[in-house]
Amino acid sequence: MDGDGGGVTGDGVSLYRGLVTTRAIRRYTDEPVPDEVLRDILFAATRAPSGSNRQPFRFVVLTDGPVAQRAKALIGTGARRFWAAKREADGYDRGSGSQADSPKARLARTMQDYVDQYEHVPVLVLACYVPYRNHTAASDGASLYPACQNLLLAARALGYGGVMTGWQFAADDELHRLLGMPEEVQIMATITLGRPQGAHGPVRRRPLPELVFGERWGEAPPWAVDPEGAAFTAAGPPAPSA
Amino acid sequence: MDGDGGGVTGDGVSLYRGLVTTRAIRRYTDEPVPDEVLRDILFAATRAPSGSNRQPFRFVVLTDGPVAQRAKALIGTGARRFWAAKREADGYDRGSGSQADSPKARLARTMQDYVDQYEHVPVLVLACYVPYRNHTAASDGASLYPACQNLLLAARALGYGGVMTGWQFAADDELHRLLGMPEEVQIMATITLGRPQGAHGPVRRRPLPELVFGERWGEAPPWAVDPEGAAFTAAGPPAPSA
Repeated sequence: MDGDGGGVTGDGVSLYRGLVTTRAIRRYTDEPVPDEVLRDILFAATRAPSGSNRQPFRFVVLTDGPVAQRAKALIGTGARRFWAAKREADGYDRGSGSQADSPKARLARTMQDYVDQYEHVPVLVLACYVPYRNHTAASDGASLYPACQNLLLAARALGYGGVMTGWQFAADDELHRLLGMPEEVQIMATITLGRPQGAHGPVRRRPLPELVFGERWGEAPPWAVDPEGAAFTAAGPPAPSA
Repeated sequence: MDGDGGGVTGDGVSLYRGLVTTRAIRRYTDEPVPDEVLRDILFAATRAPSGSNRQPFRFVVLTDGPVAQRAKALIGTGARRFWAAKREADGYDRGSGSQADSPKARLARTMQDYVDQYEHVPVLVLACYVPYRNHTAASDGASLYPACQNLLLAARALGYGGVMTGWQFAADDELHRLLGMPEEVQIMATITLGRPQGAHGPVRRRPLPELVFGERWGEAPPWAVDPEGAAFTAAGPPAPSA
């Protein structure tokens, strides 16, 4: 391993290809995630960069113990409430959402299943931030979310998958108490992980020239075009009332 | 490419290994970064996940035009001021910092060179956030910094390197004016990129059990140990007055 660690590294995907093809996974088999896989996923997460290399991130990894069950129930309850409101407000059942095979209807089904099955996710990770002197809220995320992205990419590399949400917000106080977490620690993301179940769609993102500008805001440089072969570049959330 | 894009993909590193070995690169050769490499780096950045797949991130990519020169000078001036204050306050020239071959002294030299040469960085990327209705500051970063991490990892995959800082803060208003950026857009990170120059050190991070907890805050689960072969796991910034 050349002194840089990482035990289970038998993945066949290249770094670049992994970056452009990793997508949110919300449906998992019942298979538990082995300890050595958790170790390697978390090892990769914690090798991410942070401001002044302070590493203010801490990951609480919950699998199947009593505290894990309670945390899943707390977040699952909030998630179901949140999704029910969003499903209605964003019109997931209107427009193309009324056609069972539309991307919108499929996403709604996947989300509904995800929140309905929340208590059964194999692994729940709370990504936490430990504030230090002089920290500013604006930059806190810069020292934590790169590690979360490493975590999701590492899961993919090792044959697993996951998704990040902000659903801890619905049970922040209860989670702090449940885990004996100091008050100043901020839970900044909720990540679930498991072995992907069934087929899943492609990565859908907007085309590059909408997202990359050059010397003037809003104007893409000539090179900012989707590479040949890129597909599914007409993404974004469903229009609110489409 | 199976319909998922990414033109220049001749990298030899696996996804997992890339995650655990990518480090901050602050010294670059004068070599410009070719347009097709920029395209592929930005393509990978913009395939990252974001809340509700809204993709509120925009990347301003500056190379060698007049606006780029001005932006580098603005940020470089602030960076030199910031680093001079930090070098003093954090005692980079005291304790082990007085020994030329200590990690602390080496980091100080690299940082000094970095800010001194700022106007010559091959590529300057401003990672910007476009707010939407109902956004909350706390969660904004969750939809932007994963894309920044993808960007840095993609650079590595393609033979380049970079580092992310918050140094835009010193010239926020001027940068908005210079680039014709709407007031509500937030510049949330400054990333420089280029071809790495010379040798660089390993990834130094804290040991896994300091960063990963189980069912109780502060208590690592039994599996949370550094994988065999892991090294340089005694990191963090230099102690303030060591």
